Amino acid sequence: AHTHPYISTGLADNKFGVSMEQAYHAYQLAHTSPNLEIVGVDCHIGSQLTELAPFQDALERVLALVDRLAADGIRLQHVDAGGGLGVRYQNEQIPGIEDYVSALKAPLAQRGLALFLEPGRSIVANSGVLLMQVDALKVTETRHFALVDAAMNDMLRPALYQAWMDIQPLTRHSHISSASWDIVGPVCETGDFLAKGRELSLLDGDYLALMGAGAYGFTMASNYNSRPRPAEILVDQADCHVVRERETIEQLYQLEKLL
Amino acid sequence: AHTHPYISTGLADNKFGVSMEQAYHAYQLAHTSPNLEIVGVDCHIGSQLTELAPFQDALERVLALVDRLAADGIRLQHVDAGGGLGVRYQNEQIPGIEDYVSALKAPLAQRGLALFLEPGRSIVANSGVLLMQVDALKVTETRHFALVDAAMNDMLRPALYQAWMDIQPLTRHSHISSASWDIVGPVCETGDFLAKGRELSLLDGDYLALMGAGAYGFTMASNYNSRPRPAEILVDQADCHVVRERETIEQLYQLEKLL
Repeated sequence: AHTHPYISTGLADNKFGVSMEQAYHAYQLAHTSPNLEIVGVDCHIGSQLTELAPFQDALERVLALVDRLAADGIRLQHVDAGGGLGVRYQNEQIPGIEDYVSALKAPLAQRGLALFLEPGRSIVANSGVLLMQVDALKVTETRHFALVDAAMNDMLRPALYQAWMDIQPLTRHSHISSASWDIVGPVCETGDFLAKGRELSLLDGDYLALMGAGAYGFTMASNYNSRPRPAEILVDQADCHVVRERETIEQLYQLEKLL
Repeated sequence: AHTHPYISTGLADNKFGVSMEQAYHAYQLAHTSPNLEIVGVDCHIGSQLTELAPFQDALERVLALVDRLAADGIRLQHVDAGGGLGVRYQNEQIPGIEDYVSALKAPLAQRGLALFLEPGRSIVANSGVLLMQVDALKVTETRHFALVDAAMNDMLRPALYQAWMDIQPLTRHSHISSASWDIVGPVCETGDFLAKGRELSLLDGDYLALMGAGAYGFTMASNYNSRPRPAEILVDQADCHVVRERETIEQLYQLEKLL
């Protein structure tokens, strides 16, 4: 399936999974054990998938295993079809949740199997934004740089996966002409970018929102360059709640000991 | 200079630095201020450089600026030539520290300028190892995987920079034939590898050392996959000191608040 090599999981060269033949023999072995109860089968074929066909193809193969096991008297109660349904970061065409669920559910219903799903990214990715402020604008002969107070340690996806993430300004400046800005952080390497070549009208001090930050954002955050991790705010209609406090410099060193 | 795009710093397309002409005008401006004392000039051209020529070329350009400023009566006391001297991770030929220092020092001495350096990586990189244990060996039709208890969250360089880092076994098995192993962690993505295709004789439970982990190792560590960061141990001859305690699961959540 089309996805970044780092988040593919179903290939022979990946560390994940076992072959169908190995799985069949593992069930046979488990079936002989008085201490194991066989309840289901789980699969995962990759992350940020934008088409239904790979899910359907994978499920078809899993159901062939399920049917083969059933013929041996090993009856499963559920199929966990994993996660992997992509989200729209830029212009991806993402299948609807309903289409995704019904494509997977129909083949299971006739076998009396429950469908389990683990759709983490598609639930949380676009529920989160990374809020940042422009600390400085720097225009060189070849580039326009907006230096912001967020960095690769807060959001690693652009550096690690060359991921495109949307940048939305919180203030519209109708009187300022736009330019093609690179949004970069203060961390000491060139990999510290959040976005490149975005047509924006910017002033020093502006707030920007990096969209789609709810998945693989905070969870991959580090303290690189001795940067405390940001606060996490839950917004519920008009109410805001701090659900994780901003880290302090002192907390970065609390586990260290001097000799 | 030859280096990974993410750790290059001296290119026109990088966010870092100012042009020589801008620097000259900045010194002129600073010189007119009664509140600023001009003491020196700093430069940095990249990280993990394995040749002296780029440092010498950069210094020559900086000294042209220094001389131009001296002609205007602006006298500097030091040149900070930055860091950037590479270390040997695999088979890089690294210039000697003495050659590095004398190449930079000689042109400064005749001008009465002090040399400042910031050689972080070359001091600490090969002072550190990441110790890990093999949790499982998995042999598929196409690959040999050694699953270890360290992961990309502990050491990001292989995933982020495609960096080659040496793996040394702590036990030699003379009776076990070697194979070409991929050293992978338990984190849920294919980018979670520490090394690929290493000829090793391995048994389940073996300890391995990832060499050269002292620079850009712990400092880039994250809690991805809810993994507490490892302890840091200082070894001084026969003495070992815990200089940073192992993180606990509870500490990962200590700043979080339930509504």
